[in-house]
Amino acid sequence: MGVEDELTQKKKAVDRHLEQLLSREDSLIDQAMRYVVFSGGKRFRPLLALSSGECFGVSHEVVLPFACALELIHNYSLIHDDLPSMDDDDFRRGKPSCHKAFGENIALLAGDSLLTMAFEVMAKAPVEEKCLTKKEKLISEISRLAGVEGMIGGQALDISSSPCEMTEEEYYELTLKKTGSLLIASLKVGAILGDAEPSQVQALEEYGRNLGLAFQIRDDIIDSYRGSSKDHPPRPDAVLLFGDKEAPRKLRVYIERATRALEGVGLESEELRYLALRLLEIGE
Amino acid sequence: MGVEDELTQKKKAVDRHLEQLLSREDSLIDQAMRYVVFSGGKRFRPLLALSSGECFGVSHEVVLPFACALELIHNYSLIHDDLPSMDDDDFRRGKPSCHKAFGENIALLAGDSLLTMAFEVMAKAPVEEKCLTKKEKLISEISRLAGVEGMIGGQALDISSSPCEMTEEEYYELTLKKTGSLLIASLKVGAILGDAEPSQVQALEEYGRNLGLAFQIRDDIIDSYRGSSKDHPPRPDAVLLFGDKEAPRKLRVYIERATRALEGVGLESEELRYLALRLLEIGE
Repeated sequence: MGVEDELTQKKKAVDRHLEQLLSREDSLIDQAMRYVVFSGGKRFRPLLALSSGECFGVSHEVVLPFACALELIHNYSLIHDDLPSMDDDDFRRGKPSCHKAFGENIALLAGDSLLTMAFEVMAKAPVEEKCLTKKEKLISEISRLAGVEGMIGGQALDISSSPCEMTEEEYYELTLKKTGSLLIASLKVGAILGDAEPSQVQALEEYGRNLGLAFQIRDDIIDSYRGSSKDHPPRPDAVLLFGDKEAPRKLRVYIERATRALEGVGLESEELRYLALRLLEIGE
Repeated sequence: MGVEDELTQKKKAVDRHLEQLLSREDSLIDQAMRYVVFSGGKRFRPLLALSSGECFGVSHEVVLPFACALELIHNYSLIHDDLPSMDDDDFRRGKPSCHKAFGENIALLAGDSLLTMAFEVMAKAPVEEKCLTKKEKLISEISRLAGVEGMIGGQALDISSSPCEMTEEEYYELTLKKTGSLLIASLKVGAILGDAEPSQVQALEEYGRNLGLAFQIRDDIIDSYRGSSKDHPPRPDAVLLFGDKEAPRKLRVYIERATRALEGVGLESEELRYLALRLLEIGE
């Protein structure tokens, strides 16, 4: 099976597991959670978790709950990010954003609920008794990287920064926190559960940081094609900062750095390499 | 030392631990988190956790991280509850509410951050290796009770209910979820870490349910004294439902049921009894 098929199989396993976790449709909150989680996400973070687990021989069954928890955390952040007091986005993945479809109050609670559920899923994740210490270390790392030191800290920088005055350094700090943190958290699943060597942990972090930068620059380039649909000023982004020509070059540089970080430390994963290279495709 | 002094000592220990957890003041989010957490809360949930732990001989050192995590979860829920899209409250504990003091976006993220931090604190809580299974069970129970099946589910019922058409049954369901769930979660700290007997778990749940009803009815009575400060209709509350005279009687009934639940199963805790009886004091 080629690497693309492997990733397709993994994505299907993630979707099946998410279906089980979000099987309730009783209340508006349940429906709002499903609406967002099953709106065509690429499951980038779960794939990173599963592929990193494979590097160290950790079984899919053990990784899946953590992989899905990361997707729940990602989706909660999208809901809260889209709210009027934040980015005020009416659309997400071509559909009305959660608060447009369900109202602001339900969207707020659906986000809270996805975040809370992520931790319930991780706490319940079945691992062997001898792995319980690794499991608590992983939950602690994921919450640190999702919190004010990581992803939330990046969102705070984002709302306090003014688009036209942002320096390159500030862009990197913001992006590494806002986007990089959760990608690194996903790679920690394999690293922590699989007892990675310190050199391998470093390599995965280096891969994750560059992947985060590439991911965000790519997102910004795609955004700039679409143009700004609302009358508020465009968010600070890579195209504004680096220019039309330099931004795609930066994208290639970070992808190359990401793939190179994996070399020479026993992490020659076709999948992790491919997940980075796939970010080169922009026209979708 | 009398029961009042014991509780004062415990509250001080909780405040000291929260100070350590929230020592950062670097960013606006850090400041917003501190603003809310150190605005005069009574630490009711941490006290329940510590007192329930004492029933089973679990040391304060082991209980404190969970006790403080519950306080963080409670405070996140207050911030999000006060937001304009929810209850739209400008004041909380006599001070401008978080979004009035810091803006809606920072308040949203400060709430998210407190919730995320609660799980980091629990994941990092030091317990003996043989207690790791109990610890993961406790984290899973707390997240379930704080989530869509519990507290968040209650908030959802609250925003979807219309004040004047609410039945007694609906009020109980809403209150047990919205207020009762987190009180029961606090009592689970002692029950799970202290290996409570099934009859004791049942008794603590019965105590927690009645405490939740008493707590909310008392809150509603106090609210009705203050009157409605905004032009939106008053929230559905016990006074509207039961009337001025019946509401205080209901309060006494639930407090009595709460204290009675503790009898005869080895849970004759002066503190748990006192924490319920203290809800009789209304004029504050």
